[in-house]
Amino acid sequence: MPDPSTSQDRRPAIDLHGLITELFPINRSLTGAGVRQTLRIISRYIDLAINEVPTGTAVLDWHVPMEWNIRSGTISSLSGRRLVDFADNNLHVLGYSKPVHGVFSRAELAGHVHTLPDQPDLIPYRTGYFADDWGFCLPHHLWQSMTEESYRVDIDSEVAPGSLTYGELFLPGETSQEVLLTCHICHPGLANDNLSGISIMTALAMRQARRTRRLGYRFLFLPATIGAITWLDRNETRIDRIAHGLVLTCLGDSSGFHYKQSRKGATIDRAVAHVLRHCGQPSELLPFNPYGYDERQFCSPGFDLPVGCLMRGVHGTFPEYHTSADNLDFVTAEALQQSYAVLETLLDLLDNNRIYRRVDGRGEPQLGRRGLYRAIAGQREAGGATQMDLLWFLNLADGSHSLLDMALRADVPFARLEAAARLALDAGLVTESA
Amino acid sequence: MPDPSTSQDRRPAIDLHGLITELFPINRSLTGAGVRQTLRIISRYIDLAINEVPTGTAVLDWHVPMEWNIRSGTISSLSGRRLVDFADNNLHVLGYSKPVHGVFSRAELAGHVHTLPDQPDLIPYRTGYFADDWGFCLPHHLWQSMTEESYRVDIDSEVAPGSLTYGELFLPGETSQEVLLTCHICHPGLANDNLSGISIMTALAMRQARRTRRLGYRFLFLPATIGAITWLDRNETRIDRIAHGLVLTCLGDSSGFHYKQSRKGATIDRAVAHVLRHCGQPSELLPFNPYGYDERQFCSPGFDLPVGCLMRGVHGTFPEYHTSADNLDFVTAEALQQSYAVLETLLDLLDNNRIYRRVDGRGEPQLGRRGLYRAIAGQREAGGATQMDLLWFLNLADGSHSLLDMALRADVPFARLEAAARLALDAGLVTESA
Amino acid sequence: MPDPSTSQDRRPAIDLHGLITELFPINRSLTGAGVRQTLRIISRYIDLAINEVPTGTAVLDWHVPMEWNIRSGTISSLSGRRLVDFADNNLHVLGYSKPVHGVFSRAELAGHVHTLPDQPDLIPYRTGYFADDWGFCLPHHLWQSMTEESYRVDIDSEVAPGSLTYGELFLPGETSQEVLLTCHICHPGLANDNLSGISIMTALAMRQARRTRRLGYRFLFLPATIGAITWLDRNETRIDRIAHGLVLTCLGDSSGFHYKQSRKGATIDRAVAHVLRHCGQPSELLPFNPYGYDERQFCSPGFDLPVGCLMRGVHGTFPEYHTSADNLDFVTAEALQQSYAVLETLLDLLDNNRIYRRVDGRGEPQLGRRGLYRAIAGQREAGGATQMDLLWFLNLADGSHSLLDMALRADVPFARLEAAARLALDAGLVTESA
Repeated sequence: MPDPSTSQDRRPAIDLHGLITELFPINRSLTGAGVRQTLRIISRYIDLAINEVPTGTAVLDWHVPMEWNIRSGTISSLSGRRLVDFADNNLHVLGYSKPVHGVFSRAELAGHVHTLPDQPDLIPYRTGYFADDWGFCLPHHLWQSMTEESYRVDIDSEVAPGSLTYGELFLPGETSQEVLLTCHICHPGLANDNLSGISIMTALAMRQARRTRRLGYRFLFLPATIGAITWLDRNETRIDRIAHGLVLTCLGDSSGFHYKQSRKGATIDRAVAHVLRHCGQPSELLPFNPYGYDERQFCSPGFDLPVGCLMRGVHGTFPEYHTSADNLDFVTAEALQQSYAVLETLLDLLDNNRIYRRVDGRGEPQLGRRGLYRAIAGQREAGGATQMDLLWFLNLADGSHSLLDMALRADVPFARLEAAARLALDAGLVTESA
Repeated sequence: MPDPSTSQDRRPAIDLHGLITELFPINRSLTGAGVRQTLRIISRYIDLAINEVPTGTAVLDWHVPMEWNIRSGTISSLSGRRLVDFADNNLHVLGYSKPVHGVFSRAELAGHVHTLPDQPDLIPYRTGYFADDWGFCLPHHLWQSMTEESYRVDIDSEVAPGSLTYGELFLPGETSQEVLLTCHICHPGLANDNLSGISIMTALAMRQARRTRRLGYRFLFLPATIGAITWLDRNETRIDRIAHGLVLTCLGDSSGFHYKQSRKGATIDRAVAHVLRHCGQPSELLPFNPYGYDERQFCSPGFDLPVGCLMRGVHGTFPEYHTSADNLDFVTAEALQQSYAVLETLLDLLDNNRIYRRVDGRGEPQLGRRGLYRAIAGQREAGGATQMDLLWFLNLADGSHSLLDMALRADVPFARLEAAARLALDAGLVTESA
Repeated sequence: MPDPSTSQDRRPAIDLHGLITELFPINRSLTGAGVRQTLRIISRYIDLAINEVPTGTAVLDWHVPMEWNIRSGTISSLSGRRLVDFADNNLHVLGYSKPVHGVFSRAELAGHVHTLPDQPDLIPYRTGYFADDWGFCLPHHLWQSMTEESYRVDIDSEVAPGSLTYGELFLPGETSQEVLLTCHICHPGLANDNLSGISIMTALAMRQARRTRRLGYRFLFLPATIGAITWLDRNETRIDRIAHGLVLTCLGDSSGFHYKQSRKGATIDRAVAHVLRHCGQPSELLPFNPYGYDERQFCSPGFDLPVGCLMRGVHGTFPEYHTSADNLDFVTAEALQQSYAVLETLLDLLDNNRIYRRVDGRGEPQLGRRGLYRAIAGQREAGGATQMDLLWFLNLADGSHSLLDMALRADVPFARLEAAARLALDAGLVTESA
């Protein structure tokens, strides 16, 4: 009898790589039409509330920035040949570039050009969110080949009052406790760093929407930093409901898993560590630090929520990071599927992490007369639990150990303790602890 | 001056291997005449109360089973040759076999025969306590050589209302705290798994009976599982007196020591670890799990007592386990003696694990004017303590550290801290803490 | 930009080796003129209170001993040739030798002669503080060459009522909390074991005297054991002000650093471990034990102060220990300077180990509009802090983490968190926590 497995038979309801492919060409940024278009596509799958927060709104220590929109951006030779075109790759224009039209000497242009001399074939990803600037990102080889004296530059963009857009879906549960899942939606054509999290979170939300839920589930699609700060500002009185939280990012590459622990140490840290230990993939736990994704905000003073961050490759450590090589080939269907399965396993664990109490409250019950006695500790019961799993469950079902506590002490997958719990419930040996 | 040693000069009052040899032929089971005979023999040495609990008595989630007695059991050829005879080895008949008399085809008999194909010369030990069954256990080679069409089978046994028998000795101490020592008495001719514990516990009880005792000592000779459950049921209101507990089993083989820790973590765990660390034999600590001997019951919910289990070889991991090879040759006088010495050392530690407080309460006392000053930390005092041991004792005699706490911090044998305590008591430097 | 370094640019105000050289020839003991002369020389640099406590004064479990003074001590051949002369090396006479004048057979003299057969060229250091004895310490080779039948012995000394002398300097701080620094002053011509601590402590006192101090600093120059006991007796009601304490000894040899932790576990232990980890020298942490220097007394029951001991070489483990080889060549200016720098760094850490609280109390502040945003975590700010250091500081400035807590969690030198704190204070982002 196979283990009630963490990953083999957990399949998302949508084609994860397909959704990434659809979203890839859209030009996302902190704000603007691309973000709205992205959220509209996600809304096909889940009942997303799309929120608009006007430019200038005070949010904690910050203000909602101007909205940026761009129609086109090119560098052309004076003879009219297009050398760099935003239409080819939306990384080509520096995020939040202001409009510009004119002819610039190569030397002047150089002050607005970003390249990667060490990765000369790749386009870097750069933004200038709060800078009054414009710029282009291009392969270093291309820039080196541009030896003419002057070039024509056109950026047809707008930085103007508007709003910040974010998406939110809340699926209520039987209790007031919530699981928070977030991803960032502010990166343009980067497949792993952005779209892998968006795609997997969409599939998880679809799945949770169809289930009975003990816990509530809150899915946030946020522009990074300012989006999290905006959400925290608007939900400050409700955050004590967040029992577990996770930031999802970079989940489509072929690296092993990395889990960055919460600042405060929390059940989410033990739960993710447990799922990763039994997921069949290499994984590593990383201590909290205040640099990274929006766990920075959720774990900041005054909030200090139990929020970690799940990644495969770690930002800044793989060569494709923040370059045009983080493309549709860099993320694989297999890696996305594994990541999805780990997260589905994790959500099931959190939702089913109940506490049980033995009905009679003392001693080891007689399994034999209930048909549950097996002479061998490793012998399997129906449902996948071994005799040993059942003994662990009955030994720790004292009203003070959660199923996760038991699984960690027994060092077996959570699902086997769940199976043992079902056997014991069916036999009337335990009740769920209030 | 030698260390006040843990093991060299600690000798049991009886011949441990001799007692095992005497008890070996008796057919023990959960209940029955063999158990009573075993306890009667032990009663020659210690003042054992023998308790009878009637069949059907409700004990926690269980009921006391029928009593089983057997007079004979044979398999014979139709020509009258005895091939398997309970009189030769009491492992030959499945425990709790019901009576049977008749001729069975080899195929029919096969459903009642237990062998060990991987250890074809050995008889397995099997029971069917709560099954309505009968059976024989024999060497696989023998079974393979039995190629006739039919055999005559006779088991002259009885499964009938009667009682469960267990032995108990309580030696009161100066305080109400108790040390619980238990072993199981339900295995027939197995020398290590059963008799080693019985023999050593008898010797320990003899020894403790002759001593002044700060703590009380309770020795339980129990049929496994149902015996412990019965005892717990009948003593439920008194179990809060159990300060330390230990299950003794498999103490006569040549393996290093194994100590399985209590479920809750307790002083007994630190005490046994300390004694084993200094006993001069290899040893290993094992975490609690809910499979094993009666620590399962004592550490079950509602009781959760500070009870561990001391073994040499671990059940299920040595090839002789639960076979006819666990015989009188498998246990050695030397191993039994070492085990006894470790346990005597442990009981002395528990009994003498006092807390002391400095009389003047502050500073380092002047040892010179009391004749206790030695310039060298390693220099020995009378009694075996070094100058360093005495300094540790005086430094930690603050009313909050037990002698075991001190020995663990100083990382020297407990007896050396005891010796230091005597020096300090004699010099009027400390009093025992209430 | 270099790290705000722990050791490179921290220079004592005096020539450490020079002060040792000046003090080396003076004959120190528990009491007497040599101790007073030593303290007078130290008084040239710092405003030392010199305390005299009369012989016989009861101090805790002890009494202040007789005072010992010596003018000369010689062994001569009967022909008048001086073979051993206290004037050559003050180790030659056993400490607290009573006066003696006469001719002794070699056999009689042998009972009063101390040598090191394994280090035959060295003079041992021996004392007989509380013994009614006299004696000489000499190289074993010399003693072996003394083959005449009788020798003339003259010790012109006095053991008489007088007083015990110790030096104390207290530099008050803004708060009532104190840092205690102590060294022993009772060893004669031993450069590392005594004088290195005296010299470095003098320089530290000079330095702290010139600074604004949040904490008070108490510097004790004590005869070992009885000096500490005397001070504890006279200051018993004030010792709860001691927040951190350190015994200084053997700080001039070329060994790596050794830090012996306090008995109770305290901030001083984490602070010293942190400074040593980042000091660029090898170092090792040692658990507390009740043998050693005056940490024995400060960590004794009834006081149990947060006092550790910083050493390079550990007493009893280097061959020069307590011999004439612990001389002016054994201590080096470089090692003394490193030790001084480590201690200056430590005192700065203790004094600046403040707790901060974010002004707005929640979220991650917007660094960009305050000119503090750097895109790269490792990018340096003015003052030496990296962007990451600043993020750690702002994340942990929640009123419950000290700067040391932050430095340990970020695993970077304390000074970088200090620099981050200054940036945040200047930007009005935090206030010091009351």
